Amino acid sequence: MNQAVILAGGQGKRMKAPIPKPMFQVLGEPMLEWVLSACEKGGLERICVVTGYESEQICSYLGDRCATAYQAERLGTGHAVMQTIPFLNEGANGNTLVLCGDAPFIDAATISKSLERHIKENNAVTVITAEVADPTGYGRILRTDSGIAGIVEEKDATDEQRAIREINSGCYWFRTSDLIGLLGRITNNNKQGEYYLTDTIAIALESGLRAGAFRSDNPDVVLGANDRKGLLRLNEAARMRKLNDLMDEGIGIVCTDGIIIERHVQIGKGTEILPSTIIRGNTVIGENCKIGPNCVIENTVIGDNVTLNTVQAYDSTIDSDVRIGPYVHIRPNSHICTKAKIGDFVEIKNSEIGEGTMIAHLAYLGDSDIGKHVNIGCGTVTVNFDGLKKSRCEIGDHAFIGCNNNLIAPVSLGKDCYTAAGATITTDVPDYALAIDRGTLHIKEGYTLRKFAKRRDENKDETKE
Amino acid sequence: MNQAVILAGGQGKRMKAPIPKPMFQVLGEPMLEWVLSACEKGGLERICVVTGYESEQICSYLGDRCATAYQAERLGTGHAVMQTIPFLNEGANGNTLVLCGDAPFIDAATISKSLERHIKENNAVTVITAEVADPTGYGRILRTDSGIAGIVEEKDATDEQRAIREINSGCYWFRTSDLIGLLGRITNNNKQGEYYLTDTIAIALESGLRAGAFRSDNPDVVLGANDRKGLLRLNEAARMRKLNDLMDEGIGIVCTDGIIIERHVQIGKGTEILPSTIIRGNTVIGENCKIGPNCVIENTVIGDNVTLNTVQAYDSTIDSDVRIGPYVHIRPNSHICTKAKIGDFVEIKNSEIGEGTMIAHLAYLGDSDIGKHVNIGCGTVTVNFDGLKKSRCEIGDHAFIGCNNNLIAPVSLGKDCYTAAGATITTDVPDYALAIDRGTLHIKEGYTLRKFAKRRDENKDETKE
Amino acid sequence: MNQAVILAGGQGKRMKAPIPKPMFQVLGEPMLEWVLSACEKGGLERICVVTGYESEQICSYLGDRCATAYQAERLGTGHAVMQTIPFLNEGANGNTLVLCGDAPFIDAATISKSLERHIKENNAVTVITAEVADPTGYGRILRTDSGIAGIVEEKDATDEQRAIREINSGCYWFRTSDLIGLLGRITNNNKQGEYYLTDTIAIALESGLRAGAFRSDNPDVVLGANDRKGLLRLNEAARMRKLNDLMDEGIGIVCTDGIIIERHVQIGKGTEILPSTIIRGNTVIGENCKIGPNCVIENTVIGDNVTLNTVQAYDSTIDSDVRIGPYVHIRPNSHICTKAKIGDFVEIKNSEIGEGTMIAHLAYLGDSDIGKHVNIGCGTVTVNFDGLKKSRCEIGDHAFIGCNNNLIAPVSLGKDCYTAAGATITTDVPDYALAIDRGTLHIKEGYTLRKFAKRRDENKDETKE
Repeated sequence: MNQAVILAGGQGKRMKAPIPKPMFQVLGEPMLEWVLSACEKGGLERICVVTGYESEQICSYLGDRCATAYQAERLGTGHAVMQTIPFLNEGANGNTLVLCGDAPFIDAATISKSLERHIKENNAVTVITAEVADPTGYGRILRTDSGIAGIVEEKDATDEQRAIREINSGCYWFRTSDLIGLLGRITNNNKQGEYYLTDTIAIALESGLRAGAFRSDNPDVVLGANDRKGLLRLNEAARMRKLNDLMDEGIGIVCTDGIIIERHVQIGKGTEILPSTIIRGNTVIGENCKIGPNCVIENTVIGDNVTLNTVQAYDSTIDSDVRIGPYVHIRPNSHICTKAKIGDFVEIKNSEIGEGTMIAHLAYLGDSDIGKHVNIGCGTVTVNFDGLKKSRCEIGDHAFIGCNNNLIAPVSLGKDCYTAAGATITTDVPDYALAIDRGTLHIKEGYTLRKFAKRRDENKDETKE
Repeated sequence: MNQAVILAGGQGKRMKAPIPKPMFQVLGEPMLEWVLSACEKGGLERICVVTGYESEQICSYLGDRCATAYQAERLGTGHAVMQTIPFLNEGANGNTLVLCGDAPFIDAATISKSLERHIKENNAVTVITAEVADPTGYGRILRTDSGIAGIVEEKDATDEQRAIREINSGCYWFRTSDLIGLLGRITNNNKQGEYYLTDTIAIALESGLRAGAFRSDNPDVVLGANDRKGLLRLNEAARMRKLNDLMDEGIGIVCTDGIIIERHVQIGKGTEILPSTIIRGNTVIGENCKIGPNCVIENTVIGDNVTLNTVQAYDSTIDSDVRIGPYVHIRPNSHICTKAKIGDFVEIKNSEIGEGTMIAHLAYLGDSDIGKHVNIGCGTVTVNFDGLKKSRCEIGDHAFIGCNNNLIAPVSLGKDCYTAAGATITTDVPDYALAIDRGTLHIKEGYTLRKFAKRRDENKDETKE
Repeated sequence: MNQAVILAGGQGKRMKAPIPKPMFQVLGEPMLEWVLSACEKGGLERICVVTGYESEQICSYLGDRCATAYQAERLGTGHAVMQTIPFLNEGANGNTLVLCGDAPFIDAATISKSLERHIKENNAVTVITAEVADPTGYGRILRTDSGIAGIVEEKDATDEQRAIREINSGCYWFRTSDLIGLLGRITNNNKQGEYYLTDTIAIALESGLRAGAFRSDNPDVVLGANDRKGLLRLNEAARMRKLNDLMDEGIGIVCTDGIIIERHVQIGKGTEILPSTIIRGNTVIGENCKIGPNCVIENTVIGDNVTLNTVQAYDSTIDSDVRIGPYVHIRPNSHICTKAKIGDFVEIKNSEIGEGTMIAHLAYLGDSDIGKHVNIGCGTVTVNFDGLKKSRCEIGDHAFIGCNNNLIAPVSLGKDCYTAAGATITTDVPDYALAIDRGTLHIKEGYTLRKFAKRRDENKDETKE
């Protein structure tokens, strides 16, 4: 049984927010989620998260996804792992990976390859390491011919040791039975009065156990953040990595400025992303689309050859060959069918917009089922709320809905029907019918000569808003 | 009496605009303003700005905030200071700081600490200096055991002197009485035929007066701009410094692209700023807000827990727990009360929007007082201008205003009143009343069979906008 | 006769799109276009483009702008040029420049100066070269006292040769008659079985012909892209070069994030461009404008002192002193006359908007001719499409059009006419007339006391959207 303990009790005081540090987000997900999902993807069967500061936020986030242990006092990393001894005992005949919940870039390959090495070398403990250009501030790895002689902290290092560029990531594989024993032997006889997990390595070596090191190909495994500027750097690193991955897959980006694409987003080749576009969650975008500038897309499934220019879309489906924008808001549970065209200043909410339907400007379609090849006039709105309840509108194929209409839901407009500009549709309209409620237009000649005579002369060249 | 002379007569030809160089903006304020406010914050009691090129622009900007002197011909920095002799004479028994109006990053701490040193060392002149990585192009400071031996310009420097990385910022403290005397002794016997203020240092030393140097902790004190690219660099420096300060205070930024926050803006901790967001003037934002992407906020006071997604807001107040956006325009003198929710394509102008009121889409509320928990229908507009004058609308608490209404101001709608979709409200509506002006809906069956018979068959799958 | 052969047959597999590599875009134009226009600007009279992969895309792009030759099998650069022998023969008594269609930054000055050198030195072949900081991967130029001794590829180079920083751009001038001869002598006796154009140099030298090199001042002539990340780098280089050129001309940019300005765009001095603004095509912008943030401008001519705040404008003309935005869409063939003011959520399409006219909010003007100093009310739309055909609206000077009007085209509203809020204008309105079609407003007192009595009590503080 191979399992993981994730240390997530830290506060991150310099973040200046009552949030446990591992809950701060990188590219839209808590750092803890990055670590958790790497463990899950790395095949670890049991996971225990050690909480401390504002623990209920983490417990609430995790639900019953994995075990947790609570560290009431924060007395060091060793002390944190001690809180998991009941968890460790339940899976004692395997290996345990201890990770930092606030170092998000650990990856599944590093986890599985380091476990392989750990087992092959028959180590009691295997440190996951990285080689970096500037090791300042990190613990240096002291390699021997057959393993490691320990980890030396910056402050204790000789000049020669300081030159070592292989550093401790803070992640360690332990043979679980050895870990349990070693935890019982570390002490808090140090300035800070804390129990350090790294002390287990010296104790293991003293006891004749083997300690080794696995150097990850991914130097970012060591990265964490202590303040908001550090968090920005993590976000930038994750952001650029995702954009580079997408470009490798054939996505076109001519300027990365303001493009934030979360890591689970999938995009088909040939699609172009323009600046200032944020794509979140489980969004899936097809091939040869043009997305941006200035889009926000969340949890939306988009087909091929779709153009979204300055659109915000949430929790919806947009089929292939659709053109939307600029300045359009697609709210949750909408389905825009193929070849529909939606122009400017339009909101769609909880509605189906049929194939080839056109909504060119200044309209609100909510709680509606719109057929194919319908034309919705400018200024037309669905009156889907009467102050008490929401109701739906239904519009048949090929209907032509005039401008500035009010469609008073619940109402059904038949196929190929036609409504006059300015109509308020209060009853169902049959197929092929015209609906019109127009009054009489009165023309009063000379009106402005009387009304504005005086003022207009004074202000001939002024118009006011 | 300690006072300042700010040299602001330069043109900045490579800027290619008829604007005095100190009036070009960094982060939304003229460079001169940065210098002026550093002097004011540094406690200087009297300030004189020397103008020259396009002097009226500077005089008009300053109003009566401080003294000015006009340099009719631009004959060098020494000549510029000579124009202030009457000003200097009025405050002659103290010290005078001479600064460049186009080096915006001088700071109050540098000003007050350098004055302290100037007085303590009993100097006739104290140069403010900075140590920089690349001193190329700047005058180098020649230190002695007890002060300085002078400033050597790049072109006159030996190789050894060129290696000096302590450079002249162009700001100097003078004992005012000595400054007046020294100005009388500098000449224009040089290639350019100009009077150089730096010559005062050699003359002072020759006369047995003390000259010293104060090295500022802030190396940016030396930065200026000669062209638009240099101005961009100053803006970038100021922009990133502000963003870093905000992050230190607990503001979250996941990507800095397109975020411009002017220096007087205040933001509470836990608030997140998304890309492409510009925040200007005296804006104050509370805690735990989410601002952006694509917002422009000017001189607006915003409470806690406010969400602004793609909103432009000017000179207004937005209370806590308000959600606005996307695509909303809040124009001056608006007050959005707590828990109000404003959706897409809405303009608010010169209006109060009461607590919990909802304006979901496509509406214009201008010159209006809207009560609490009101619901404004989609497409509804206040008709606040009749071609002659603006008037106000008033809507009582819990009113339900239908879609596509015209509220013809001046008009008052009572509390809990209800208006039907499409109504034009021309008279006051009492509390609890319904207002409706609906005509009769006529249904003409088979209309499109006749009207479109021919064309529709031909174009069955085409809709046009 | 001096002529050019542009090699454009390559695929660019790592781009992952069925597009010939030279057709990938840099700053909105295919790389091939950059090369072609440099040749045209450099005065080359005849041009032949060699196509291969997806050749029809290139042929269709070129039309009859220049000659093309088709390379059915891609057997190397020499083989590609062999396909142009008929073309070469037609202009045999001059010189031929061979260029890469996917190295966009060749410039006219490099072309004409290198030709001058080529002729002056009486060379059979002149390599265009550049000196770069890092020559890794490029062929190094082996200079002799009187010309060059050849080009050595990275893999064949000695350590000493690898240190050479003058590299082959892949562009060569040939005396055309010599080129024809040399092409007949290169072989595919190499590992790849390809015919290399560079082999012509060794053959020329062996034959006693002169080979020389011309080092371009522009090191970017060597830049190309093999994948989307490389293409991003070319775009970034082109983008920043254009922005720097604009700043040199006196355009203000305080933050370059998200600003993409295509290379043919012209902007007058004193104009400021704000972030996230894309300006494309043949757009011409006057002096002292303020454009951005978040604008998209295509092929639009804009006067002086224009403010565009969050506007998209396409194929239109905007005269001086116009203010537009935020959130406005100007569609093709619109003309906004001087001093007009267009506010938020407005679409203009194929219309003329007269001098000083104001369209403050939430309106659609399509296919319309609007006079001077007209005021268009909020929510007013032109009903320009009846399901069969588009028609125009005409509005006279000083007209005052009320809110939420429908103007049913074709219709003509006279000068100084006035329409009431909510009117649907179905017939022409004479000058000075009032048009009104208002029904009777019915007030039903106590309505909500009855309708909402139960529900309102329960939900007093809830409003729903």
